[in-house]
Amino acid sequence: MTKSALQIARAAYEPKVPNTLKGIVKIDEGEPTQSVSHQEEIKKLFPNTYGMPIIKFEEGTEKQNHAPINVGVILSGGQAPGGHNVIAGIFDGIKNMNQESRLYGFILGPGGLVDHKYMELTSDIIDEYRNTGGFDMIGSGRTKLEKEEQFDKGLEILKELNISALVIIGGDDSNTNACVLAEYYAKIGAGVQVIGCPKTIDGDLKNDMIETSFGFDTACKVYSEVIGNIQRDCNSARKYWHFIKLMGRSASHIALECALQVQPNVCIISEEVEAKNQSLDDVVQYIANVVAERAADGNNFGTVLIPEGLIEFIPAMKKLISELNDYLAHNEEEFKRIKRSHQRAHIIDKLSEENSKIYASLPENVARQLTMDRDPHGNVQVSLIETEKLLAEMVGKRLAEMEEKGEYNGKFATQVHFFGYEGRCAAPSNYDADYCYSLGYTASTLIGAGKTGYMASVRNTTAQAAEWIAGGVPITMMMNMERRHGEMKPVIQKALVKLDGGPFRVFAGQRNDWAKNTDYVYPGPIQYFGPAEVCDQPTKTLQIEQEERLQKS
Amino acid sequence: MTKSALQIARAAYEPKVPNTLKGIVKIDEGEPTQSVSHQEEIKKLFPNTYGMPIIKFEEGTEKQNHAPINVGVILSGGQAPGGHNVIAGIFDGIKNMNQESRLYGFILGPGGLVDHKYMELTSDIIDEYRNTGGFDMIGSGRTKLEKEEQFDKGLEILKELNISALVIIGGDDSNTNACVLAEYYAKIGAGVQVIGCPKTIDGDLKNDMIETSFGFDTACKVYSEVIGNIQRDCNSARKYWHFIKLMGRSASHIALECALQVQPNVCIISEEVEAKNQSLDDVVQYIANVVAERAADGNNFGTVLIPEGLIEFIPAMKKLISELNDYLAHNEEEFKRIKRSHQRAHIIDKLSEENSKIYASLPENVARQLTMDRDPHGNVQVSLIETEKLLAEMVGKRLAEMEEKGEYNGKFATQVHFFGYEGRCAAPSNYDADYCYSLGYTASTLIGAGKTGYMASVRNTTAQAAEWIAGGVPITMMMNMERRHGEMKPVIQKALVKLDGGPFRVFAGQRNDWAKNTDYVYPGPIQYFGPAEVCDQPTKTLQIEQEERLQKS
Repeated sequence: MTKSALQIARAAYEPKVPNTLKGIVKIDEGEPTQSVSHQEEIKKLFPNTYGMPIIKFEEGTEKQNHAPINVGVILSGGQAPGGHNVIAGIFDGIKNMNQESRLYGFILGPGGLVDHKYMELTSDIIDEYRNTGGFDMIGSGRTKLEKEEQFDKGLEILKELNISALVIIGGDDSNTNACVLAEYYAKIGAGVQVIGCPKTIDGDLKNDMIETSFGFDTACKVYSEVIGNIQRDCNSARKYWHFIKLMGRSASHIALECALQVQPNVCIISEEVEAKNQSLDDVVQYIANVVAERAADGNNFGTVLIPEGLIEFIPAMKKLISELNDYLAHNEEEFKRIKRSHQRAHIIDKLSEENSKIYASLPENVARQLTMDRDPHGNVQVSLIETEKLLAEMVGKRLAEMEEKGEYNGKFATQVHFFGYEGRCAAPSNYDADYCYSLGYTASTLIGAGKTGYMASVRNTTAQAAEWIAGGVPITMMMNMERRHGEMKPVIQKALVKLDGGPFRVFAGQRNDWAKNTDYVYPGPIQYFGPAEVCDQPTKTLQIEQEERLQKS
Repeated sequence: MTKSALQIARAAYEPKVPNTLKGIVKIDEGEPTQSVSHQEEIKKLFPNTYGMPIIKFEEGTEKQNHAPINVGVILSGGQAPGGHNVIAGIFDGIKNMNQESRLYGFILGPGGLVDHKYMELTSDIIDEYRNTGGFDMIGSGRTKLEKEEQFDKGLEILKELNISALVIIGGDDSNTNACVLAEYYAKIGAGVQVIGCPKTIDGDLKNDMIETSFGFDTACKVYSEVIGNIQRDCNSARKYWHFIKLMGRSASHIALECALQVQPNVCIISEEVEAKNQSLDDVVQYIANVVAERAADGNNFGTVLIPEGLIEFIPAMKKLISELNDYLAHNEEEFKRIKRSHQRAHIIDKLSEENSKIYASLPENVARQLTMDRDPHGNVQVSLIETEKLLAEMVGKRLAEMEEKGEYNGKFATQVHFFGYEGRCAAPSNYDADYCYSLGYTASTLIGAGKTGYMASVRNTTAQAAEWIAGGVPITMMMNMERRHGEMKPVIQKALVKLDGGPFRVFAGQRNDWAKNTDYVYPGPIQYFGPAEVCDQPTKTLQIEQEERLQKS
């Protein structure tokens, strides 16, 4: 491995951890807990892991002797900055309990457990990856651990390697599955504990006990760096509107955080579009109005942030996509025989009047994307739709109409961008490096305490790391019942942007100013060595939410 | 202006400068110079500014008294990191000569001079912009200063403001024009000196006396950061080939420098494609072979860097575009009447056999781009062609053919990216912050010495800043005669990637290893506060070129 100068220098960074993790840990157990809703159903599904107390670590005095323990670790789903530090934290934690403890990594995600692909993670490997981005130490994968056959198959290798605890690092679904696995192993008396860790750049795995998922901080900072650079360019050249789509799946947390960091002219929040029952046309008109207003001041430039999931949140688009999915599923062969150049007219003819009108209004390439690129289940792959181009094009058309009516007078040239892969594997910011290491160390401490079905939790993270509160939260506590593929399932509630939450309210309170006036902020690249006010700041989202929590309490 | 924490901290940075600029400067004049070729023609065109000596600053002992001087500054062309520091350097330089000196910035580029749009740059304005990216202090523009009417119009405002020296910060064309202006003002005895400064992220303005144009360092580092992040993602997920197009106009310096920094699997160098008379098909086959070779090892992922100017360097594409331009120029009306869905077939029918075949082989969207998006002169806007998508699509098709023949067995999924606007306005790296400030200070020193028709030159920049060599180079020295719009014109030679130069040879010597093995480097974001080996390294290109220079001398 050829290493960059930064990578070499950064390897020496020692993550900051809560004081309670530094010495002897005392386990403080709270009251029994309840799931967020559907308590009876969930209790029934998780008889062995339901209702457990919240755990808080405190500074202890009685040193416990631990037998050596073998632990397995799995990275599940999309990459997020800091995953390697979680693993390093687990490693250091179990070695601190007993130097003879061992850590095994399952290769390329949950599939590695099922297929018995693993490697032992020794100190020389761990040291190579401290404070680095990426999941390349053991790789990740998207296999879902859902079925008992998988659990049983996994147990074979766990037994073979004498592994008595498994840490699953993943998003809401992976943690849900971690809990199902914990319950199953408890039920059959497998003697394997399962602990989850909250990972996802999307920021949609959070609640009162999980302040943020790791990676969100770093990813948003990388995106804000490049958006800030684009804004400075935009403000220097004064001739382009930049339409910038941001990764983040359904939730708009990333777009919102970036907006708070860079103060763009426009940021669309999917959750608001849905709540206000806005149409695509409404969104287009909103942007066009901002463009026109700025043009009136002679400012024919600007920035528009667009969350990846937008299309799915526009109620009318959702209906259109649903009808399209339905129609194409039932008429696939017929549709394939139609000449490419006639497909659009054919679809317009077949759809209901309302959807037909919307479909006809879409630019050709997007209309094509809606009928062409389908996933294995026959559904439109919404994430492939180039919403940034779609909106740029539709806003251009709308402005031309407004110009004819004398409502707009300006120049409109666009550039489009999509940022996602740039942020998922960046070297973790100090925040994520510290947070991840602490999460991993916390996971190992929960293991040492014999716990299962818990998610590692590190709270109070807007304070100095020394004051962070580490412990564990029963995963069942975060669950509710939701319909998935037509069946009611116990799942961790996905956190969408709350329109009555602090981050959105701060944004909404300023966006009109940002739209009309140019008040861009240029955050610059993540710094690892500078003054604390530059290097150690958590996201704006987290800071605002923490203030809210403090005001409430 | 709302400032980020980094921006506030970075404002305090004091650029490092050559020792010779710190105290009293002595002017050392060398022998008379010659233009790189066409000496007689150029001498004739520049009777007042031809043959001047190279100037080198040395440490002096005799303090000179300077009268106050009013200086104008213009930012010309595309943004490049560090422009504000050039202006700050000029400001501090002329204030050091005499506190009563004044600096005026012309607004939005050369057009500001012609249209008399300007602002005085006072110390409070300058201080707001020290070490920041962007050109937003006074804006930039692409108006070409070429005509005597413009020069005369400009002189009116220069006289009105009592400005006796003008600094033009721009690329090769802008510096050519600066020299034409210097010559004109000298000829008519206008009493206005003109000094140029070498700016462009593209890195194509360089020669023995100008080691690099400013902004190249920072821009390449920003691109390398995000490419490195993508590579780490690529190496973690192990399922995508990322096709990444990079800004840089004709020359492939940016792609080459990024390749040296990140060690991708493939990097195409336009100059090599042209020299080897390769076809688009050759380029596609080369990439497909690398994909197949990696697939044979089970590595169905990788990265491909593509320089923006590639299409223009493929001799066959050049011919196709030329025939298309010709055909469409003469048949515009007829072509417009043809139904969109029939246009492609129409063109295939009309082109010569050779070009028709190439055109037919292009994916539909690219074929359309070649006939649709034309500049005001009726020419294809090559920079708008999504070469990254074109290659991804064509490589996919080629692999399908290879699979049928049993030459390939793997999975091929792609992601495409284009990076350009992300890097042009980043806050300058230490290198660019120091280099730009030194260039500006040098420009003011040349002004103080009464020089005109010079470009500010700061050399030996791979050494400590204290040892950098500052001075001036007669712009005529860098000129040759080239055909532009059908006329022979004196212009600064554009520096393309030299295939016998060090940077390309280092790349060519390792690319086969990088292709087959995965030896990605992850440079990470630009650091402003860390250890020197992280913060103060010049580009690989410059380091290799400097070694070469030392070996030769």
